[in-house]
Amino acid sequence: MRINENYRALKESYLFSEIGRRVNEFAKAHPEAKIIRMGIGDVTLPLPAVTVEAMREAAAEMGRAETFRGYGPEQGYGFLKESILAYYEERGVQLEEGEVFVSDGAKSDLGNMLDLFDADNTVLIPDPVYPVYVDTNVMAGRRILFMNANESNGFLPLPDESVDADIIYICSPNNPTGAVYDSAGLAAWVNYALKKGAVIFFDAAYEAFIVDPELPRSIYAIPGAKECAIEFCSFSKFAGFTGTRCGYTVVPKDLLKGELNRMWLRRQTTKFNGVPYIVQRGAAAALTPEGRRQCMENIAYYQENARIIAKALESLSIWFTGGKNSPYLWLKCPPGMDSWAFFDYLLNEIHVVGTPGAGFGGNGEGFFRLTAFGNRENTVEAMERLKKLLG
Amino acid sequence: MRINENYRALKESYLFSEIGRRVNEFAKAHPEAKIIRMGIGDVTLPLPAVTVEAMREAAAEMGRAETFRGYGPEQGYGFLKESILAYYEERGVQLEEGEVFVSDGAKSDLGNMLDLFDADNTVLIPDPVYPVYVDTNVMAGRRILFMNANESNGFLPLPDESVDADIIYICSPNNPTGAVYDSAGLAAWVNYALKKGAVIFFDAAYEAFIVDPELPRSIYAIPGAKECAIEFCSFSKFAGFTGTRCGYTVVPKDLLKGELNRMWLRRQTTKFNGVPYIVQRGAAAALTPEGRRQCMENIAYYQENARIIAKALESLSIWFTGGKNSPYLWLKCPPGMDSWAFFDYLLNEIHVVGTPGAGFGGNGEGFFRLTAFGNRENTVEAMERLKKLLG
Repeated sequence: MRINENYRALKESYLFSEIGRRVNEFAKAHPEAKIIRMGIGDVTLPLPAVTVEAMREAAAEMGRAETFRGYGPEQGYGFLKESILAYYEERGVQLEEGEVFVSDGAKSDLGNMLDLFDADNTVLIPDPVYPVYVDTNVMAGRRILFMNANESNGFLPLPDESVDADIIYICSPNNPTGAVYDSAGLAAWVNYALKKGAVIFFDAAYEAFIVDPELPRSIYAIPGAKECAIEFCSFSKFAGFTGTRCGYTVVPKDLLKGELNRMWLRRQTTKFNGVPYIVQRGAAAALTPEGRRQCMENIAYYQENARIIAKALESLSIWFTGGKNSPYLWLKCPPGMDSWAFFDYLLNEIHVVGTPGAGFGGNGEGFFRLTAFGNRENTVEAMERLKKLLG
Repeated sequence: MRINENYRALKESYLFSEIGRRVNEFAKAHPEAKIIRMGIGDVTLPLPAVTVEAMREAAAEMGRAETFRGYGPEQGYGFLKESILAYYEERGVQLEEGEVFVSDGAKSDLGNMLDLFDADNTVLIPDPVYPVYVDTNVMAGRRILFMNANESNGFLPLPDESVDADIIYICSPNNPTGAVYDSAGLAAWVNYALKKGAVIFFDAAYEAFIVDPELPRSIYAIPGAKECAIEFCSFSKFAGFTGTRCGYTVVPKDLLKGELNRMWLRRQTTKFNGVPYIVQRGAAAALTPEGRRQCMENIAYYQENARIIAKALESLSIWFTGGKNSPYLWLKCPPGMDSWAFFDYLLNEIHVVGTPGAGFGGNGEGFFRLTAFGNRENTVEAMERLKKLLG
């Protein structure tokens, strides 16, 4: 029996374990220090009450003979897909029910979607990047090209016509940079993909953080996108579902005359059994008017944290992206400091923990990620310490 | 961009749609007929009360700041893995916590596990078969060999030393035949796999239906199995979780000196984000003493249905497998009738719907599946009608 040798080419990521090691060492040496963690990539507020109530009711339904449900449709219940269609409709995007697939999260689908594509494809991935885009392709032995995201393009690279690519990853609002493409930027990518016969994997996991009405929250706001793009979205950041697990993926029927849609349906009915009924009820509750209000209240809390961080960085004249339409802020390290040196500097001097940009790829060197998922008091205090240190 | 051309080699399955079509047509022509469905492959009893209560409490926890949980470990929470270890321990199987991976179901993991193996492997699959084993390998373009399960081997084929295979599928208790391997049968497969350097995918989804204490409920009851077998199990049939979604997969560290265990961990942390916390609490509740009692009460109900079907078949001197340690009964069609002819005969004459064996592979021709997942009254009535028809 032969194993998939491509796994041997995977690089171990020591980013978060190395952060943990350095923080623990510091805490041991300075037990009196109040460490503030600004590196969290996970929500921290409890679930909106309507989602909790809906899941408690759905669990009770499962305990009664008259309302029990066994296997559901692999691609999701109609009640949830209809709510998702309406959510898109509000933003002017018309989708059919058969184009929406309920999933257990964007991460699963981003990885599993690659099943539909030959290993002999060239993949174009931004650097810096969410490491999963790279690893899932290394596992299949695909050629990977990187596009340079950097200070000069505001970490929003545009297509280079001289480069040929088959599968293109775009994450907007971006993790880790918080940068968001405008319509012109996304249109450039859609046109490039159409010209090259490529498919775009559009990761919209952070779309709910977009407050600027001019910025596209779905790639399908761009004409032509339905012929070249698959969109991955999630209740993780919108409704705080990181531990509750629900997302959705849109595979338009205009893509390859419906072939990718049929292939994904076949993949999911063969290798997946759907999201728990209880969780789908919770997700649908998040999309009701009251659910939306509660979800946006939580997002507004994180956004206020982001504004507090952004204001501090502006007052220090530090260059950064994100923070306005994203929970992430991506800032330039002080001159002469690489990202791990800056990490150590903040930890030692003001006991604030962030994430060194080098952990997200070569172009992350010299940059640093702060997140808005902490609590208000700590966020305010961390920024006061930062202003005192660098001011 | 090139799609995965292997998808074009997939065969459409018309089994259940064709059954639906014929039943609808009959119902339309005979609106007065009381049709009894004995083809259900899904549980029908509501969830055990302890699992409902645990999930309701877990949902409430998620709504409170002090007990909210975000991303959990991809491989499952310790509290659930410990319960699973104890479940194995009772049956004399010692596993380490790092060998157990909580999943959203056996179907997902059976498909996804193939990521770890090269496309250049030969797969050995029983015929008749759960179609997912075939389709997931066709999707990757692997060579498939079939082993003959038939009347003469009681639908429990043993290894043929002259055949070389790399990946071997064994499902016991079997879907669709209900046949169960004894220890000697499984030992023959383990020895064959060790000799050939092959890996066994052991599908134990129906293990909770085994009542005979002599029959192995895990392949790890067989010496040497930890060096050659991956076991897939599920709460679907044990706790009625088909719509609640939780399973577990065991990848022993003795397999390829730990390499497959490390690869699976890497696969799951890269392409999966874990099972909902709420669902894991429900699954753990099913493994408590009271949960076990409630689950076994439901299973006993289905087992009594199976006994009623088995008794009817015995009284008619019809050859069959299953029904004693399995919710499935696999019977031989009357002489001169193929499985679709028998389907039509039962539908037309006694308004009973089963599943034609031909739908599960060439060797299923001439056989027919009945299931014990219906309700008692209907099961009794269907068997009375059958005895009147064939007696």
